Amino acid sequence: MRQAVLTCAVLSAVTVFACPCQAQNPPSSDPDEARIEDVITASHILTNEGILDSFGHVSARSAKNPDHFFMPRAMPPALVSRADIVEVGLDCKPVDPNAPRLNGERYIHCQVYKARGDVQSVIHTHDLAVIPFGLTGIALKPVLAQAGFLPPQVPLFEVREANASEPETKRGMLVLNATLGDALAKKLGAGPVVLMRGHGSTVVGSSLRQVVFRAVYTEVGARLQTEAMRLGPVTYLTEEETVATTNTIGTQIDRAWFLWLKAARKRSMAG
Amino acid sequence: MRQAVLTCAVLSAVTVFACPCQAQNPPSSDPDEARIEDVITASHILTNEGILDSFGHVSARSAKNPDHFFMPRAMPPALVSRADIVEVGLDCKPVDPNAPRLNGERYIHCQVYKARGDVQSVIHTHDLAVIPFGLTGIALKPVLAQAGFLPPQVPLFEVREANASEPETKRGMLVLNATLGDALAKKLGAGPVVLMRGHGSTVVGSSLRQVVFRAVYTEVGARLQTEAMRLGPVTYLTEEETVATTNTIGTQIDRAWFLWLKAARKRSMAG
Amino acid sequence: MRQAVLTCAVLSAVTVFACPCQAQNPPSSDPDEARIEDVITASHILTNEGILDSFGHVSARSAKNPDHFFMPRAMPPALVSRADIVEVGLDCKPVDPNAPRLNGERYIHCQVYKARGDVQSVIHTHDLAVIPFGLTGIALKPVLAQAGFLPPQVPLFEVREANASEPETKRGMLVLNATLGDALAKKLGAGPVVLMRGHGSTVVGSSLRQVVFRAVYTEVGARLQTEAMRLGPVTYLTEEETVATTNTIGTQIDRAWFLWLKAARKRSMAG
Amino acid sequence: MRQAVLTCAVLSAVTVFACPCQAQNPPSSDPDEARIEDVITASHILTNEGILDSFGHVSARSAKNPDHFFMPRAMPPALVSRADIVEVGLDCKPVDPNAPRLNGERYIHCQVYKARGDVQSVIHTHDLAVIPFGLTGIALKPVLAQAGFLPPQVPLFEVREANASEPETKRGMLVLNATLGDALAKKLGAGPVVLMRGHGSTVVGSSLRQVVFRAVYTEVGARLQTEAMRLGPVTYLTEEETVATTNTIGTQIDRAWFLWLKAARKRSMAG
Repeated sequence: MRQAVLTCAVLSAVTVFACPCQAQNPPSSDPDEARIEDVITASHILTNEGILDSFGHVSARSAKNPDHFFMPRAMPPALVSRADIVEVGLDCKPVDPNAPRLNGERYIHCQVYKARGDVQSVIHTHDLAVIPFGLTGIALKPVLAQAGFLPPQVPLFEVREANASEPETKRGMLVLNATLGDALAKKLGAGPVVLMRGHGSTVVGSSLRQVVFRAVYTEVGARLQTEAMRLGPVTYLTEEETVATTNTIGTQIDRAWFLWLKAARKRSMAG
Repeated sequence: MRQAVLTCAVLSAVTVFACPCQAQNPPSSDPDEARIEDVITASHILTNEGILDSFGHVSARSAKNPDHFFMPRAMPPALVSRADIVEVGLDCKPVDPNAPRLNGERYIHCQVYKARGDVQSVIHTHDLAVIPFGLTGIALKPVLAQAGFLPPQVPLFEVREANASEPETKRGMLVLNATLGDALAKKLGAGPVVLMRGHGSTVVGSSLRQVVFRAVYTEVGARLQTEAMRLGPVTYLTEEETVATTNTIGTQIDRAWFLWLKAARKRSMAG
Repeated sequence: MRQAVLTCAVLSAVTVFACPCQAQNPPSSDPDEARIEDVITASHILTNEGILDSFGHVSARSAKNPDHFFMPRAMPPALVSRADIVEVGLDCKPVDPNAPRLNGERYIHCQVYKARGDVQSVIHTHDLAVIPFGLTGIALKPVLAQAGFLPPQVPLFEVREANASEPETKRGMLVLNATLGDALAKKLGAGPVVLMRGHGSTVVGSSLRQVVFRAVYTEVGARLQTEAMRLGPVTYLTEEETVATTNTIGTQIDRAWFLWLKAARKRSMAG
Repeated sequence: MRQAVLTCAVLSAVTVFACPCQAQNPPSSDPDEARIEDVITASHILTNEGILDSFGHVSARSAKNPDHFFMPRAMPPALVSRADIVEVGLDCKPVDPNAPRLNGERYIHCQVYKARGDVQSVIHTHDLAVIPFGLTGIALKPVLAQAGFLPPQVPLFEVREANASEPETKRGMLVLNATLGDALAKKLGAGPVVLMRGHGSTVVGSSLRQVVFRAVYTEVGARLQTEAMRLGPVTYLTEEETVATTNTIGTQIDRAWFLWLKAARKRSMAG
């Protein structure tokens, strides 16, 4: 008789995904724990979707204390789990002085949360599809229904300008202090995305899942615009089209999130 | 103690694909159940082949009642199973008033089935390879033997024209009502495919498997034409070539279907 | 104690690849069986490497009877196994009159084997990287050390010329008879590859593994030449370079074959 | 009866990655064994990241005897394990006269280690993203923060010049002797990367993990520069930017290494 006894724990390890004993836990009733869970999931999703590499990061503002936010310690987002999440103040210091080392570029998050009370989540990417726009100064614009959240021209942060008064040996590319973070937040303005020349992008929004959606469709839009510009002059979305379409699609964010979650779980590298 | 016996059912979950006990069920003898099975499979195949994202949808007309068709509720096609299929009338209302929420863009399907008695299946994609053609107005044309079903120039639906008489706040990109669906169906005409600017495409045909084949090879043809146009002037298929070739290849659709099915099963995210 | 008993057969199904009980059988001592095994493996490899789709095919001449060759019945190469292999004569008829249905384009193989006594294997692809060259008439040339087997200009088969005397309804794209096969073989000449406009390519050589190597590196070379031509004028290999390099790399074919075999086994869809 | 007990060892084979009993061994306390382990891991990582094919190779200088280095025998890097590693002298001969056959292009490694006392590791790639730069003579330059280690213009090795005095039949593309290796090392100069026309690149550095990082981000930078050049004139990093950024990112190499390691283990083809 061909049979084997496997405990649920073992089967889960084998199947990763399909085992009934591996059903998702219900989301936490603690609003901050729920946000932390989403930070972890978003880190896995965005790696799996090719938006984050070893170096990008995802954060969410605390629901209980809007002057705090949660982000992973300095590590690849693909591998983040609960123990890696650090609570950070808007002064960019961890609440727990014994917290593990944070990303050098945490100032992106602090200064954006400071400048934008409406922002509940920030994602910093090294998205390869948007970088050519920053390198050439070609404006990234909305070309696709799902990218209707983009402004008529996505702003571009030129770190060289922000670094002009730094000593020569500090004129790097990274956002390693509050001054550069403020300059980035200023360039972002009231919008959803700012490109960073030679570096990537920063994406923000009123919920973490919205920001994940925006990060993915900024990338898809960038790829489409690049391809289309090589074929001929491009028809961009009108402002009416962006507003009306985003109102509709904005209600469907969980639909995409749920698929990306399934895909990320299937190819998970965490654990 | 949580334990599982490695029966065939469990092994199927583990191996996804290779287990002899996981042989496909014979197709249903009920013609509508057979069509529903194909809608589910096509949803998985087209996600796996990169044609559908979280938002596209597949439908098939009822074999028993040509005024009805079957399509999944509003959800990612990759995850569709039998319980998600809704029977819909040509008035675009579910037959069962308690049916789960449908896709807002179901009017694509209703209005095409109304206008085209010959159409047995409709697929709406956000196919990234065809969108640049719609964005630039460059005509998509047949370049490949397997894409010989394409007309000399694939028509392009400009939603802006169809929206001209809408109030400003309703001039979006999506086909959310019968008027827009009718305009799309009119642009499709008697053909197999219509492009949708900034949005994707709609593909139709006389059987679901034919439409899946057409959706995949529209995408392959679009990629090839894009690449070729960057190299130099392109030789397109003559009408003779499209007709003669499609007559031959049209008999081979199940061959591709069977491979795509195997590949989709192997990487399934459903269940 | 966490343990489970699994028979080798079951473990093989689970692990696909790593189980010691799934060690490869030694190659057959019958030279034709060894060639048939390579036809099967090559069919899987070339699908996995993205060279073959549902419709391409691989064949090998019989070692015992050079007027016969082996090719799979009409089916996706990814799924071919021993039972699918048919012995075919140079008249393009199966040796066994009860053999399963063959590919319509088997004339590619018959006519090339007839014209080229040196050829031991033929592969017909719908390789997407080479098709843009055929569509534009841009000459595919050797740009890469591993593609040094390519002639200074790869010939292009224009089926339209070969079809000129056919009745209008038969002027398709496919090589469905001996006349078209002869025209293709003539265009191939003494070389390793011929492109087919709007269709793909045919690759030949003195051993099946050599032809697999050539098929893969024709594709890689095509991709590189396409990218390079967009950057600026391209330096092609000199004839000296192609000869000297191919002499060296020609001895290393099994090295690539073995890696591709491992990769194909890991992602196998057969069985 | 062939049976296997699902011990940790067997489960590791099944799950590849997630099993707690599959924790990595601690790195060897023998510095040369630690370097050899990194050569093996780097070979797997760089295949998985698409930088190495069947033919590239990775080496590391001996920590104990700087006139020796370790590299795999002639085989696909994806499949390398401990038994395949050969200790080689700077005369390009294996220390053990019974060592298995080495790569013909081992002279790349020997001559670079001879010329560059600072170099602790050498990687030779056939990286498809950089080859178009070599084919066209377009200079590869730093465009991305993570590629700040690149010089203002990456040098290009033209084997044709180095081969000018060879007999005609030896004017190939490969670096098969010390003379060609010396010419390559001379073109590399004091830098981190040299491109090789129609062939690939050679990447060096002060530690193996640094060289892996450089190989990956040379590829990423090449892809970005290619895309950007098609959109418009490109802003490259200033020298200040490359220096300041590389000082920061240079401390983060293990972060990327760890992720690539996890990904490579998950999709491992070795064993």
